[in-house]
Amino acid sequence: MNLQDITNQIKQKKSFLCVGLDSEMAKLPAHLLSSKRPVFDFNKSIIDATAPYSIAFKPNLAFYESRGLTGWHDLEDTVYYIKEKYPEIFLIADAKRGDIGNTSKMYAEAFFKQLPFDAVTVAPYMGADSVTPFLGFSNKFVILLALTSNAGAADFQYFSNSSNKPLFTEVIEKSKSWGPSENIMYVVGATKASMLVNIRELVPEHFLLVPGVGAQGGSLEEVAKYGMTKNCGLIVNASRSVIFAGNNTDFSQAAASEAKSMQTEMEILLKKYKVI
Amino acid sequence: MNLQDITNQIKQKKSFLCVGLDSEMAKLPAHLLSSKRPVFDFNKSIIDATAPYSIAFKPNLAFYESRGLTGWHDLEDTVYYIKEKYPEIFLIADAKRGDIGNTSKMYAEAFFKQLPFDAVTVAPYMGADSVTPFLGFSNKFVILLALTSNAGAADFQYFSNSSNKPLFTEVIEKSKSWGPSENIMYVVGATKASMLVNIRELVPEHFLLVPGVGAQGGSLEEVAKYGMTKNCGLIVNASRSVIFAGNNTDFSQAAASEAKSMQTEMEILLKKYKVI
Repeated sequence: MNLQDITNQIKQKKSFLCVGLDSEMAKLPAHLLSSKRPVFDFNKSIIDATAPYSIAFKPNLAFYESRGLTGWHDLEDTVYYIKEKYPEIFLIADAKRGDIGNTSKMYAEAFFKQLPFDAVTVAPYMGADSVTPFLGFSNKFVILLALTSNAGAADFQYFSNSSNKPLFTEVIEKSKSWGPSENIMYVVGATKASMLVNIRELVPEHFLLVPGVGAQGGSLEEVAKYGMTKNCGLIVNASRSVIFAGNNTDFSQAAASEAKSMQTEMEILLKKYKVI
Repeated sequence: MNLQDITNQIKQKKSFLCVGLDSEMAKLPAHLLSSKRPVFDFNKSIIDATAPYSIAFKPNLAFYESRGLTGWHDLEDTVYYIKEKYPEIFLIADAKRGDIGNTSKMYAEAFFKQLPFDAVTVAPYMGADSVTPFLGFSNKFVILLALTSNAGAADFQYFSNSSNKPLFTEVIEKSKSWGPSENIMYVVGATKASMLVNIRELVPEHFLLVPGVGAQGGSLEEVAKYGMTKNCGLIVNASRSVIFAGNNTDFSQAAASEAKSMQTEMEILLKKYKVI
């Protein structure tokens, strides 16, 4: 998958929504728990219900690893289910990996060869050789943490040098030359939407993955106002607010309804900023 | 496991060696490849051969995830093998995880509840709420990345504020108050041994996990000179240089020999600095 494929999908579906599959067992609708594979069944229903309104899915690895082999099995079957049934969907491993070169190479193989992900989120702390192995795969993407949506973002990401340049700016400035610009995206939390003005000065065209709309309280309108490019340039993630919108037998309809509501708002913004 | 248990083991085995189980399929001795479970068989032989000289084992998650379900199965069986046969051994998940609070909580459950690890390596970029969920488990440890052993460490870890304080120092200063000091350790690469002087001013008693001796070229003597405390305070990791010391049917003897050689050098240093 390349950037053009992603942009085409955004224009066709009139959406830049990513649904985060943070499929926590304890939050599943009760009636699913008697199934043999509650999480996989839940994911299939959520995927089918929300795919018409979404351009990306993003399984969050922690929610699968926490259930060991069973969880990893659910992850594998979920990503193959998406790739087979919805090959146009951009598939992101939310894994926040990053290690010395020879180890990052193995993580890249885990997500890009062993599994058919299109992108993986990577933490920048260990620098260039922890990130570049992920960039050695054509038509695959690194989504590097820049300014995250959580409270702890303030601890180190704003740590600034003598020119008042914060760390997240240094991360973007340095990393954008580490590989083909087409294959790097950045995580910028919706809870920090006003910072998008500064970030767009550094990376006017790169795609940004934006978490924090929904359960974390960020505003979609602000994100579009400060971050949208002529090709959209945004993939906005919602996890809990979509997948746990309902908790009964009609949970997938509730998820579809929430995704459709976000898509409708996104369509208005895509028109407002003349992407479509 | 608590710090006293670790210190007792160091004094008893006269060693502060951690063996990194970076068990890459492509590097295994050829005769193992015909076995049904080459990596698990390799790990068992390496563990049995090196346990007398080691106080910790550290599976590197990337080398298991890169083989999907089969790899995760090898990881599980390896850690249970260690916990049952060598319950005194400190068991580290080298995972470099870190995410927003509710996600880090799931990672902590993956390593501390679903699997019986004693410690997990964590990346600090996302700040306090990405680290503290790992600190909510008694007798479990967070090993936070501070100054890593790879070339890329220079990219952001030395990024300094107007008082010339580098990021890795800020990480140590801030994080040491995030939980019981007993339950936080730091990663400091052996390739940056001289920096241990400054780090010991900040955390005079915390344990440090030191990679980079062996294949990456760091010096054990320098690490001890600048980093050792009265309780040792060091766990030095060697991965490839030990586990791939030999490549034939006698690979486990070669690994034992390399581990014993490091233990011998460590015993001399423990005596020199009056830990034993």
